[in-house]
Amino acid sequence: MEKMLSVWKTHPKEGLELKDAPVPDPKDDEVLIQVKATSICGTDLHIYKWDEWAQKRIGKNIPYIFGHEVSGEVVKAGKSVKGVSVGDHVSAETHISCGYCYQCKTGNEHICQNVKILGVDTNGAFAEYLTLPYRNSWVNDKKIPHWVATAQEPLGNAVHTVFDGEVAGKTITVFGMGPIGVCAVALCKAAGAEKVIAIDNHEGRLKFGKDFGADVTVMASDGVDVRKEIMDATNGLGADVFLELAGAPKAFNDGIATLRPGGRASILGVFPKPFEVDVTNDIVFRGIRLSGINGRKMYDTWYKTQAFLRSGKINLEKLVTHRFKLSEIEKGFDVLKRREGMKVVLEP
Amino acid sequence: MEKMLSVWKTHPKEGLELKDAPVPDPKDDEVLIQVKATSICGTDLHIYKWDEWAQKRIGKNIPYIFGHEVSGEVVKAGKSVKGVSVGDHVSAETHISCGYCYQCKTGNEHICQNVKILGVDTNGAFAEYLTLPYRNSWVNDKKIPHWVATAQEPLGNAVHTVFDGEVAGKTITVFGMGPIGVCAVALCKAAGAEKVIAIDNHEGRLKFGKDFGADVTVMASDGVDVRKEIMDATNGLGADVFLELAGAPKAFNDGIATLRPGGRASILGVFPKPFEVDVTNDIVFRGIRLSGINGRKMYDTWYKTQAFLRSGKINLEKLVTHRFKLSEIEKGFDVLKRREGMKVVLEP
Amino acid sequence: MEKMLSVWKTHPKEGLELKDAPVPDPKDDEVLIQVKATSICGTDLHIYKWDEWAQKRIGKNIPYIFGHEVSGEVVKAGKSVKGVSVGDHVSAETHISCGYCYQCKTGNEHICQNVKILGVDTNGAFAEYLTLPYRNSWVNDKKIPHWVATAQEPLGNAVHTVFDGEVAGKTITVFGMGPIGVCAVALCKAAGAEKVIAIDNHEGRLKFGKDFGADVTVMASDGVDVRKEIMDATNGLGADVFLELAGAPKAFNDGIATLRPGGRASILGVFPKPFEVDVTNDIVFRGIRLSGINGRKMYDTWYKTQAFLRSGKINLEKLVTHRFKLSEIEKGFDVLKRREGMKVVLEP
Amino acid sequence: MEKMLSVWKTHPKEGLELKDAPVPDPKDDEVLIQVKATSICGTDLHIYKWDEWAQKRIGKNIPYIFGHEVSGEVVKAGKSVKGVSVGDHVSAETHISCGYCYQCKTGNEHICQNVKILGVDTNGAFAEYLTLPYRNSWVNDKKIPHWVATAQEPLGNAVHTVFDGEVAGKTITVFGMGPIGVCAVALCKAAGAEKVIAIDNHEGRLKFGKDFGADVTVMASDGVDVRKEIMDATNGLGADVFLELAGAPKAFNDGIATLRPGGRASILGVFPKPFEVDVTNDIVFRGIRLSGINGRKMYDTWYKTQAFLRSGKINLEKLVTHRFKLSEIEKGFDVLKRREGMKVVLEP
Repeated sequence: MEKMLSVWKTHPKEGLELKDAPVPDPKDDEVLIQVKATSICGTDLHIYKWDEWAQKRIGKNIPYIFGHEVSGEVVKAGKSVKGVSVGDHVSAETHISCGYCYQCKTGNEHICQNVKILGVDTNGAFAEYLTLPYRNSWVNDKKIPHWVATAQEPLGNAVHTVFDGEVAGKTITVFGMGPIGVCAVALCKAAGAEKVIAIDNHEGRLKFGKDFGADVTVMASDGVDVRKEIMDATNGLGADVFLELAGAPKAFNDGIATLRPGGRASILGVFPKPFEVDVTNDIVFRGIRLSGINGRKMYDTWYKTQAFLRSGKINLEKLVTHRFKLSEIEKGFDVLKRREGMKVVLEP
Repeated sequence: MEKMLSVWKTHPKEGLELKDAPVPDPKDDEVLIQVKATSICGTDLHIYKWDEWAQKRIGKNIPYIFGHEVSGEVVKAGKSVKGVSVGDHVSAETHISCGYCYQCKTGNEHICQNVKILGVDTNGAFAEYLTLPYRNSWVNDKKIPHWVATAQEPLGNAVHTVFDGEVAGKTITVFGMGPIGVCAVALCKAAGAEKVIAIDNHEGRLKFGKDFGADVTVMASDGVDVRKEIMDATNGLGADVFLELAGAPKAFNDGIATLRPGGRASILGVFPKPFEVDVTNDIVFRGIRLSGINGRKMYDTWYKTQAFLRSGKINLEKLVTHRFKLSEIEKGFDVLKRREGMKVVLEP
Repeated sequence: MEKMLSVWKTHPKEGLELKDAPVPDPKDDEVLIQVKATSICGTDLHIYKWDEWAQKRIGKNIPYIFGHEVSGEVVKAGKSVKGVSVGDHVSAETHISCGYCYQCKTGNEHICQNVKILGVDTNGAFAEYLTLPYRNSWVNDKKIPHWVATAQEPLGNAVHTVFDGEVAGKTITVFGMGPIGVCAVALCKAAGAEKVIAIDNHEGRLKFGKDFGADVTVMASDGVDVRKEIMDATNGLGADVFLELAGAPKAFNDGIATLRPGGRASILGVFPKPFEVDVTNDIVFRGIRLSGINGRKMYDTWYKTQAFLRSGKINLEKLVTHRFKLSEIEKGFDVLKRREGMKVVLEP
Repeated sequence: MEKMLSVWKTHPKEGLELKDAPVPDPKDDEVLIQVKATSICGTDLHIYKWDEWAQKRIGKNIPYIFGHEVSGEVVKAGKSVKGVSVGDHVSAETHISCGYCYQCKTGNEHICQNVKILGVDTNGAFAEYLTLPYRNSWVNDKKIPHWVATAQEPLGNAVHTVFDGEVAGKTITVFGMGPIGVCAVALCKAAGAEKVIAIDNHEGRLKFGKDFGADVTVMASDGVDVRKEIMDATNGLGADVFLELAGAPKAFNDGIATLRPGGRASILGVFPKPFEVDVTNDIVFRGIRLSGINGRKMYDTWYKTQAFLRSGKINLEKLVTHRFKLSEIEKGFDVLKRREGMKVVLEP
C-alpha cells in the first residue's frame, strides 16, 4: 500500500506531528486528489495551538490529519463521480453537506444542519493526498498556479461577505485586515465601490489593506476615535456597508454605529464570546440590515470567485507572502504566530 | 379665535393637563384635521409617566400637546396641498420627514435623518384638532369607523415587521403580545403562515394572541424553557421567521437561537439598554438575517395595511378594548398602567 | 421476474397501449415506488393525441411508459439512497437534473441544462411501479391520501408562479382556470391577496375559479373587453400582479397591459408559437417585471406546497373531479378531451 | 422683463426656431437655472425631425421650448424650496412626478402615472434659463465641468439599466452602442463584470464600445450570425445578463435567446412597433427574468451616477464628441442626423 507524508494532530496540546500514512482510497462518490499546494488558515492555527475552541470542537476527533485549503490534481475517481475527471485541477469546498436537510434542499448547503468540515471533522489537506466527495471538488482553471489557487478559499469567504448586498457606488468600511479582509478590500474596489475604508490595529496589516486598494485607512490604536474617523471620511453621513472580518466586539459596534440609516452589515468575524450590543439605538431605530456570513455559497460564491480570478481583476498572488515545503510546516505556523505576512502556502 | 380641548404635557413629572387652546391654522402644505378618534400608544405612556426615556427625548419640548394615533376629517387645506381634500377621512403617518436627505431621496423616508415625530417633536393628536403636512395625511376608506381607523398605526408597525420578508408557508415565532404583537399574529395567519407561535409572560396578553390566531402559545413564566417549547413545536428544526415585538433581551436571544439556519429576524422591539448577544453562535455560524424595523414604510406599508383592512382579513375592531371621551383620558392611562386590555381609544 | 400493468406510448399516432412489463430494478441512487395514485397532466394529453409538439419532443423515445404525476410508497431503495426510506409515501419531482451544470450548482436545478423529464425522457408513472432517483423523491405527509398527493405537482407549479413575488395585500389577475390556474387562485387568497380576478373563456372552468376563491371572474367571450373589465375592477389603476396560466397570446397581452406601472408578470403558460408583443408601451415605458416560470424550485416550492397542504389552507381534494382504475385510463383521457372536470386520478 | 435666447419647436414639421423669450419666473417650489451646458438626446432628434412619434406625443404642445439634458447654476429659488440653494450647480431629473399616485408613494416616482417630461410636456433646457421644481434639481459636484455634467442624464439611464441586477463577475451582452450603450459598457467593467460583449451594426459606434471597455465586439452586419458569435464568446453557456439599448426587435430576440437559463434581460430600448417574441422557448422554459427600464430611479440612480463620476471610475468627458454654441444648435442636429459622434453639447 502506498504511503504519503501527512500532518497529524495527535495529542491534546500545542503542536503537530509529521508522519507517513497510507494513501486513502476514494469511495464511489469521491475523488483522490494529489495535493500540489495547501495553505494555513486561522482555524488551523487554533488547532495547532489547541486553544479552548479547538479542545471543544476537535477534542473527540484526534488523531487525524488537519488542513483544508488546497489545490491539487485528481488522480482517481469513484464510479459515480460526475462533473470532474482525472487530470482536473481542483480545490475543495470544505463544507461537506448532507444533501437532504431543509437548508441543503433550498439552496443553502453552506449552512447544512449536518455539515462536516474538511480537516476539522474529517481527514484534511495537510498531506500528499486526500479524498473528497465529487460534489465538493471545484475544478480550477489550469492557468492559475496551484500555489495561488489554494488561496481561493479565503477569497471565497470575502466574495460571500462582500456580495451579500450591493457594492457598486457604495462607501464601505472593512474591519480586520487579515487575508479575508484584504481580499474584501480588493473585491469592493474591483466591483465599483466609491470609497473603501480599512480599519485594523496592526500597522503591517493596515498597510496590506492599503496595497489591496483601500482609499482610507484607520489605525485603531488605543485612544483613536475610530467612529469619528469614519464619520469624517463619509462627510458625516456614515457608510453604506460595513464588513466585519476582525472578530472583535469593538469592531462590530463601531461598524454598526457608523452605518447610514438603512445600511448593510455583513458579519463573518468570529468573536471569542457574547458581548453587549445596543440593539435599539444602533439597529432598530436606524433600520439596519445585518447578516451572519458562513462559508461560501455553494456554488454561486465559487463562480464569482472564479470570474474575478479569470478576469485578472483580483491579484491573489500578492496574498501569498510565504511558501514552504510541506515538511517545513512548523515554519509556517511560526510566521502566523508572530502575525507576520498574510497567506502561508505549503507544497509537498 | 376658536378654542379646542387639548391634552398637554406641561410639567416634568408624571401626569398630564387638560386645557383649552386655540385651534391651529394650517400652513400652505398642511391640512387641518378635526379629530374624531385618537388612541394611546406605549410611547404616550412613557411620556405620561415621564420616565427616563421621556425626560431625555422630550425634556426640551414641554409644554406641548402629545398623542399621535388618530383618525379624523379634513376641514381645511393649505393652498399647495395635493392628493387630499376637505371632507376626506385621514390618519397620520407620524414620521414627518425632511424630504431631501439621502434616505428620503431613496425610498426610506421612515428613517429620515432629520425626522420629526408627531406628538413627540410637534403638537400632536390628543386634541379636537391638529395640523399635519399633506404628505403625512393618509386618506382612509370611509367605511372604516374612526375609532377603528385610529388603531391603524400600530397595525402598520406590524405590517412593516411581518412583511420584512416571506410569510406564506412559514413557521413564525412572535414574541410580545401587545397591540403590535397580536396584529402581527393575525397578519401572519392572513398571509398564509403555516404555524404561528406566540410568546409572552402575561396570561391575558397571551390569550389575546390566541384569539388573534396563534396556533401555539408559550407562556414565558419563570422556569419555563421557552427554547425547548419552540424547538418541540417545530419538530426540532426551529422557526423560519422570528418577530421581536417584546423589547426584552431574553426574547431577542431566545428568538434568534430558535431560528433555523438562514432564518429571518425582524426586530421592532425597543430595549431599555444594551445587552449581551452571542453573535458568533447565534448569528454568524447559522447565517441569520436580521433587520431593525422602525415606523412604517412610506407608503408601501400603508397600502398593505389598507388592503388588509378593506378585504376584511384583519378585524381591527377587537383590538379596541376600551373607548372613553377625550376628557376622560386619565381613565385610559389607568387601564394601560395596569396592563389591562389592548388599545384604548379616545373620542372628543 | 415480477410483472406490472403499465401504459405505453408505442406507436407514432393518437392513443396508448396497456401491457404487462417487468417491474424495474432501482439503481444505487434510486428508489422503487409502488404507485398508489397517478394523474393525467396536460402534457400527457399532448402525448396521447400525438400532436406536433409530442412528435417533435418525444418522437425518438417511443416505445416507453408515460405519465409523471404520482403518489406511492417506497418498496425498495438503492444502497446510496439518503433522506428517504422504504415505507415512505413519496411523490416525484419530475425534473431529473444533472447536478453539475451552472444552474444545478447555483440553486436553479429546475432549469438544468441537461434536464430529463420523468415520463417524457424516461419511463414514467402510468404503471404499478416506477424507479426514481432519491434526489427526486419528495416524502409526503402520510395524512394526505395518495389520490390527493398525486395532484401536488400542478399545485407546485401554481406555488412557483404565485410566489415568484409578493402576494399579501395585492390585486392579482389570473388568466386560465385549468388545474394550475384554480390552484393559483386558492393560493393567492390563502396568502392574503386583497383581490383575485380570474379570467377564462370557458364557463365551467370559470366556475371552478369562483369556487376556489376568485373575488371577480371575467368571462373572456368574443366581444368582451377584458381589459376594460379588469381596469374597472381595479378602479382604473390596474393589477399589481398578473399570472399567465392560459398559454394564450391574447391573455399574455391583456394581462400585461392591465398591470400597474411597476407590476409583476409571472408567465407559466406555454404558447403554441411566437406572437406579437408591444414591448415598448406595455413593458418598457411602464417598468414591468416579467419572469418565465418553469417547473418547481427544488425544493423551496415543495416545502411551501407541503406547508399549504399540511395547514389545511389549500383543499386539493376538490381539484380531483374524476377517479378511475389505472386500467380504465382511456376513460380519463376522454374526460380531458371534452374539457370536463379538472384533475383525473388513476389508481392501480 | 429680461430676455433670453431659446430654441422653439413652433411648426408641425422638421426644424426648429431660435428666438428671444422672457426669462421665466420660478414658482414657490421651483428654482431658476442659468443654463451653462445642454445636450441633445435622441428624443430631441425625434422632435426636430417631427416623425410619427413626435407628432403623436408632442403635437398639442407646440409652440414650446424643447431640450432636457442640462447643467447650470441656480440663480433664484422659490420660497418653499428645500435642499438646493442659489449658487448650486444642478442638473435636471426630467421626470416631473405628481408626488401622490401609488407609484410616487411607493418609491417608484420614475413611473408616476401623471408624469410630465421636461422639454416634452413643459418648456425645456434649450435656452439660457429654465425653471425646475426643486424636487427635480440634482446638485452636482462643482468639480465636474458643466459640459460634462449635462451628459449625466444618459449615464443615469445606463446606471438604471446596468444595476437592475447583479453585475460583478457576470458575462454581459450590451446591444446598441449609442451614448447610453457605451456608458453601460463602461459601467459594467467598472462594476466588476467578467466579460462585456458589445453588439452594434455601425462600425464607428462599435469602436466607441471598444474604447469604453468592451472585451468582445460583434459587428451585426447582414449575414453575421450574432447568436453564434455570442455563444462562442461564452463557451456555449450564454450570457448572464442582457442589456437592450438598441431598440431593435432583432437585438431583443438575439439577446434573450443567448441568455443562460435563469438570466436577466433589462430592456431600455424603444422599439418602433410591436414585434414577434418566442415567449415559450426563449422566456418561459428557460426561466428568464426581464424588466422594462424607464428613466432613472429617483434618486437612487443619481446617487450611484454621482459616485461613479466622483470616484473617476467613469470618464464621461470622452462621451462628448462635439461642442457648439447654443445658437449653433442646427450644427448639432446635423451631426446626429449623420450618426456621427456620441454626445453633442451646446453652451449658451
